[in-house]
Amino acid sequence: MKKITILGASGSIGRSAIAFLRMHRDKFALDAVAFGSGWEAAAAIVEEFGCAAVSFADAGAAAAFRASGRGGGCDVLVGPTAAAELAARPVDTVLAAITGAAGFPSVLAAIEAGNRLALANKEALVCGGPRLLERARERGSTVVPIDSEHSAIFQCYLAGRPSEVAKILLTASGGPFRTWSKEAIRRATPAEALKHPNWSMGPKITLDSATLANKGLELIETAYYFGIDESRIEVLINTTSLLHSAVHYVDGSLIAMLGAADMRNAIGYGLTWPDRLPTGVDLIDLGRIGRLEFEYVDDERFPCLGLARRALTRGQGGTMMFNAANEVAGRLFMKGAIGFTDIATIIDKCLSTDTARFASDLEDVVAAVGAAEAHAQSVAERHIAEAA
Amino acid sequence: MKKITILGASGSIGRSAIAFLRMHRDKFALDAVAFGSGWEAAAAIVEEFGCAAVSFADAGAAAAFRASGRGGGCDVLVGPTAAAELAARPVDTVLAAITGAAGFPSVLAAIEAGNRLALANKEALVCGGPRLLERARERGSTVVPIDSEHSAIFQCYLAGRPSEVAKILLTASGGPFRTWSKEAIRRATPAEALKHPNWSMGPKITLDSATLANKGLELIETAYYFGIDESRIEVLINTTSLLHSAVHYVDGSLIAMLGAADMRNAIGYGLTWPDRLPTGVDLIDLGRIGRLEFEYVDDERFPCLGLARRALTRGQGGTMMFNAANEVAGRLFMKGAIGFTDIATIIDKCLSTDTARFASDLEDVVAAVGAAEAHAQSVAERHIAEAA
Repeated sequence: MKKITILGASGSIGRSAIAFLRMHRDKFALDAVAFGSGWEAAAAIVEEFGCAAVSFADAGAAAAFRASGRGGGCDVLVGPTAAAELAARPVDTVLAAITGAAGFPSVLAAIEAGNRLALANKEALVCGGPRLLERARERGSTVVPIDSEHSAIFQCYLAGRPSEVAKILLTASGGPFRTWSKEAIRRATPAEALKHPNWSMGPKITLDSATLANKGLELIETAYYFGIDESRIEVLINTTSLLHSAVHYVDGSLIAMLGAADMRNAIGYGLTWPDRLPTGVDLIDLGRIGRLEFEYVDDERFPCLGLARRALTRGQGGTMMFNAANEVAGRLFMKGAIGFTDIATIIDKCLSTDTARFASDLEDVVAAVGAAEAHAQSVAERHIAEAA
Repeated sequence: MKKITILGASGSIGRSAIAFLRMHRDKFALDAVAFGSGWEAAAAIVEEFGCAAVSFADAGAAAAFRASGRGGGCDVLVGPTAAAELAARPVDTVLAAITGAAGFPSVLAAIEAGNRLALANKEALVCGGPRLLERARERGSTVVPIDSEHSAIFQCYLAGRPSEVAKILLTASGGPFRTWSKEAIRRATPAEALKHPNWSMGPKITLDSATLANKGLELIETAYYFGIDESRIEVLINTTSLLHSAVHYVDGSLIAMLGAADMRNAIGYGLTWPDRLPTGVDLIDLGRIGRLEFEYVDDERFPCLGLARRALTRGQGGTMMFNAANEVAGRLFMKGAIGFTDIATIIDKCLSTDTARFASDLEDVVAAVGAAEAHAQSVAERHIAEAA
């Protein structure tokens, strides 16, 4: 029995992971679960799996959970550092699925504890930089990526040695504006940006798929995780999101990973690696699908990818600023304060400032993210004022 | 330096392998080469690589080679068993690229000697059956397939465990008659059958690509080599022959190997495994290629694939008869003695006889192939007489 901890148990990734564990009760024990609030959902999970520990960021939820008398003698941790405490419990794998910078301390805690990490949090690598992986190596913590693209690349790396990799092929759906003119994109509304062609995801990542900032973040993660220069990462659009990514080897072989656009595949792989188990995801039938289409990304209509490459040349401070600027600009767009193409403009302006001062030690990443977002906010406000 | 022996050095595979070794003179030594005749080409290779041994099936060629005084003090082996003697010399890898049943004794000799075998000969597995691989395991000989499809599957197997494989996806080009009507196929001429859409190959394999008997042989090889039931091998057409084959894992991941339609890739991999080295094959650019198209095989217009599945249910005698009937019928078609669809009819008739009596020990495979072909010839003659 492998012991698993799930951080972010009520989110989409967390719930899929729990459904996966439910399929394989004979192989996995859910040792601990971290929730934000939502004590009733937590109680049901704790009872179903007999978890040894649960954490709540919200004190009221923890109190209600305790008062209910449910969950047997399970340990209850409370407060902003509770998820990190939970992540440090020794288990086989910690699934880190708390989103945003808030997830960083628990990612770091799992690594410090030497737990294997199934990493779904996108910001951890972008904001932590290569130093996070160095720390993982020092602590003997194996990091397995959960994002479908990085899981695909990870799987394709199994077919050769890292030194034999010529290029990584990172695929993108192209988002809802793939075929739109530059002018139409400029006038795109939040409602239009939230219509993703293939994946059903939260609003932040769906907007990021429309700007391709999400692919920029993934490009940064790819460069850091696989230790490869951005010039050796090609991004191509596969309109149906079935070819999840691939690896070009020096001998001319392209090893690709394909599958349904269903996160359960990557989640299951992250929990079972180096083994594979059924995930409930059907095998794809290329005969029925008929065709896979690929196209280059138009850098002019979708500048965020090039901005991510530029951020990478600045190191951790640069990629942290890319993320912060995208967060801030995305929120302003959703509020109607800026237009769609202003998102890239604001990222561009933020990257043109001194980003090195936002580089930080791992212990200070959350504070540095806050400082970077505050800086991005001021850059954005100046941009709005100038445009008015 | 890895020592290499090449059997069938003057054929297409052999020449590509030599070109590959020429690219990597610092890593490989060409120890021995087997030729049919053609002593001048042999002398050039022996001198270029400083080979320790050369063999000629043809005694006249050997005599001329000796008389020329070329090749330094290199050992010269002569006669019908010379290639097998050469294959038994201890080296790191023997590339078996002598085509047809004639190649079988040297394949077996390489295995018996415990040499690693890079296997390009298609008939070896089809006629030798699972017993050939058992012998390889007993003798500590690793067999790495060189055919592009099997090399692809082999590479995709690296991403998981054999027990985690759900299905193998074997791809086919569909051949020149992919879009032809049943009636047009019935009237197809030898010249039409020899126009392969993607690969430049010899006439036998090109004809077999038109009937899909080649895919039938590959299906048999796949079933034997990977130890998987034919029901778990799906065959799909990829019209551009860029997706060389793939493996479905139980978790829903499809790991695929893509690359240019260029045999140098699989040849290089067979010689370098478990490493990879540049092969001179360019990385493919899916953005430029634009699309990959897939379709099911129409069993009615292309019955040879179903016949191969049926042959497999009979074991070694059945698959040997499939090969013999296809050889005989293919020759008769090329001579104009039968129509294109008669090829499948003759294979069908041959498989409807008692095929078990053609099963044989590995030492007697060549004789059994001869007996199977003689039987197929008589079945074919009866078929022609009945049709007249």
